[in-house]
Order: sequence, then structure tokens, then C-alpha cells
Amino acid sequence: MITLHHATDTRSFRVLWALEELGLPYELRMLPFPPRALARAYLDENPLGTVPLLVDGHVRMTESAAICHYLATRDGQSPLALDPVEADYGAYLNWLHFGEATLTFPQAIVLRYGRFEPSERRLPQAVADYGRWFTARLRAVESALGDGRETLCGDRFTMADVSVGYALLLADITGLAAGFTPGVAAYWERLAGRPAYRAAREAQDRAGREQGVAATDLRAG
Amino acid sequence: MITLHHATDTRSFRVLWALEELGLPYELRMLPFPPRALARAYLDENPLGTVPLLVDGHVRMTESAAICHYLATRDGQSPLALDPVEADYGAYLNWLHFGEATLTFPQAIVLRYGRFEPSERRLPQAVADYGRWFTARLRAVESALGDGRETLCGDRFTMADVSVGYALLLADITGLAAGFTPGVAAYWERLAGRPAYRAAREAQDRAGREQGVAATDLRAG
Repeated sequence: MITLHHATDTRSFRVLWALEELGLPYELRMLPFPPRALARAYLDENPLGTVPLLVDGHVRMTESAAICHYLATRDGQSPLALDPVEADYGAYLNWLHFGEATLTFPQAIVLRYGRFEPSERRLPQAVADYGRWFTARLRAVESALGDGRETLCGDRFTMADVSVGYALLLADITGLAAGFTPGVAAYWERLAGRPAYRAAREAQDRAGREQGVAATDLRAG
Repeated sequence: MITLHHATDTRSFRVLWALEELGLPYELRMLPFPPRALARAYLDENPLGTVPLLVDGHVRMTESAAICHYLATRDGQSPLALDPVEADYGAYLNWLHFGEATLTFPQAIVLRYGRFEPSERRLPQAVADYGRWFTARLRAVESALGDGRETLCGDRFTMADVSVGYALLLADITGLAAGFTPGVAAYWERLAGRPAYRAAREAQDRAGREQGVAATDLRAG
């Protein structure tokens, strides 16, 4: 049985969404955010104090985009990953990494220095710098969706869309979604309408209630 | 023929090192750093203005860790990537992503706000915050190298070591290497002693001279 340690709407949402897309059984353990400060016992499970932590037998993983690809390939190739023989294999791997390294980290800076740090430690310049950075990089997504393409690569929905899709969900939270072009906004609407995406949102709400863990409010300052 | 667009010692060094490890032929096109400001014509090749850009036939990729895995799997599985049936497959994918998303981005913040921005835009607090972040995350590397292990996973050198190894090279440049534990320092020394690592360093120096592109000095303020 797969166990996912998760905090509402954080990077670990990628993994929850991926599990729902694959229809794999899993146990969800909810954590308050940030767990490093609010759930010290979690450090025994994951000394980094970060979410996600995925436990699958002897396998322990902490990088959300890596976990999505792992889940889609651990039992042989699922259609949610691209095979090396497919023409878009390189594009698939690139989007998988791009969603986190290029589109999510800058937003973590925006949240940290715009909302989470106490007021005397906020850095409006860094918030503005990395907001602009995010919006500039997003042009690559707009461009990939040209010519009526519905997804980023492979002519189908894949873990690349989960990886980038989480960055778009986060942009809804950081406020950077206000800068979406119509093409990106329509893509995000398609992703958020997927049954597995909605099932993942319901699963985190239900597990939070059952386990008595308040939902993270990343919108709060 | 593979073409790599590269600036000395930046993230694209991962790809150069990976090409040398695999013994693949390639053409190296050197760029000054940052290319967005110093080589405007490059924006026609890569509108993001970032390095690396790898061009391999119709394949165009910009994420350095993704490219390492792509190169190790495009012609079938090389020993430099782990196969899904191997016990450390999940760990391999995790380190591949961790090297960039967790260990490199924070150092980009340190460089930007500590050296590259004009003095009135420097942010010593962000430099200190993300220096500490990097050092805390590095404990995972120390821990993976316990029990006399020479590499991160799979009982051999892989692209996971290239991904994390570049973050250690960058730490040499940011000054954060001063915080390496003896285990991490010894691992970094092993990586930097590899023939392919040294060949990559020689290749970027030679190509820079031949193409009349001054080496990036990421150490300069």
C-alpha cells in the first residue's frame, strides 16, 4: 500500500492528483503546513520536514514531479508517461521538470516573502522579481498549447500536465493567475475539470476532516 | 548531431558532463552569461533566454536534469540511468530532481541577490535564508552516502550524481561549500576527479577560446 504524506494544496497535491489519475489505492496522511514547525514528529518520517513524502514499500521519495513519473512507470509504462520511443519523449521529460524547477520555485519565493514571513522580514522586491520571472517563463506553456493542442505533449494528458498544472493551481493562490493569457487560462480550466483532479481535491478535504487537520490556507498572510 | 548551447559553469554544465560520461558526439555553442542580456540573438533559438538549450533533431530541451535522463535513455537504457525494475529506481528519480529543484534554485537566489544585482537591489536576508536552506537540504546527501556508499543510488555512478554534483560545483562558486560535511566534501572530490568531469571542463574552456566567448565568472560580484 502506498502512503502519501500531504498538506492541502502544497506540492504534494501533484502526487495526490497523479494517484487519482492512475486509480491506485493509497493512504493519505494529512499534515498542517508547514509541517517542520507544526508537526515536529513528522521529522522522524522525513528529516527534511518537506511534503510530499511518498512511502511505497522500501521506496521513499520527496520530489513531487519525480514521484509522478515514478508512479506512471513503476508497473511498466502507463499512458500517463511517455515512452522513450515516442517523438515527444524529450518534451515530456522537459515539462515534468519545468513545472517544478521553473514554474513552482519562483512562486514559493512569492509566497514566502509576500505572505508567510513576519512583516519585518517581507521582501517586496523579491516578490515582484519572481512574479515577473514566473510570468515570463509561462510563455513557453502558451507556446506549447498553440495550434489547438489540448495538452503539453504526446497528444494526450500526461504527468507533464500534472506537473505544470500544479504550478497553475499555485498561481491561483499566489494571485499570479491574473497574468494568464487566454490560452493558459483555458488550459488550466480543462485541467481543473478533470474527474481525477476533482477527486483529489475531495480526498484532501475529507481526509483533513477525518484526521482533524485544518486545511492549509496558503492564501492567508 | 547533438548541439548544446552552454555558458561556462551554469546549469548547462550538467549536460556537458553527461555527454562526456556517455561518450556522445556533440557540438558546443558557447554563450556569455546571462545570454538574455549579452547575446540577444540567442532569443531566436530559445525565447526563454535560458541555458541549457539542447537540440537533438526535432527535440529541443531546456531543463538540465531532464536532459541528463533523456540522454541516458534515448537509445535504450544506459547504465547511467536506472531501470524501473531496479530497487533504487525511485531514489534515482528523486535525486535527479532534488539536484535541481531543491539544491540549485536556492543557490541561484544566493548568487542573484548576493552578486549579480546592482548593490541597491541586493537582499542580504534572502542570501542568508537560502544559504541556510541549501545547507539544511544537503543533509539528505550526507545521509545517502552513509555506510561507505560511493554514489547516491544503484551502487554505481548515474545521472543522479551528475544532477546533485552540479549543485556541489555551484556551492564551490557560491561559497556554500564551506559548510560541506566531510562525507559530502569527499563525495564531491570523487565526482570532480572523474575523467568525464575533467573532459567537460576542458571542453568548455577550449570552446570558449575558439569561439571568442569569455568564460562566465560566476564568482565575480
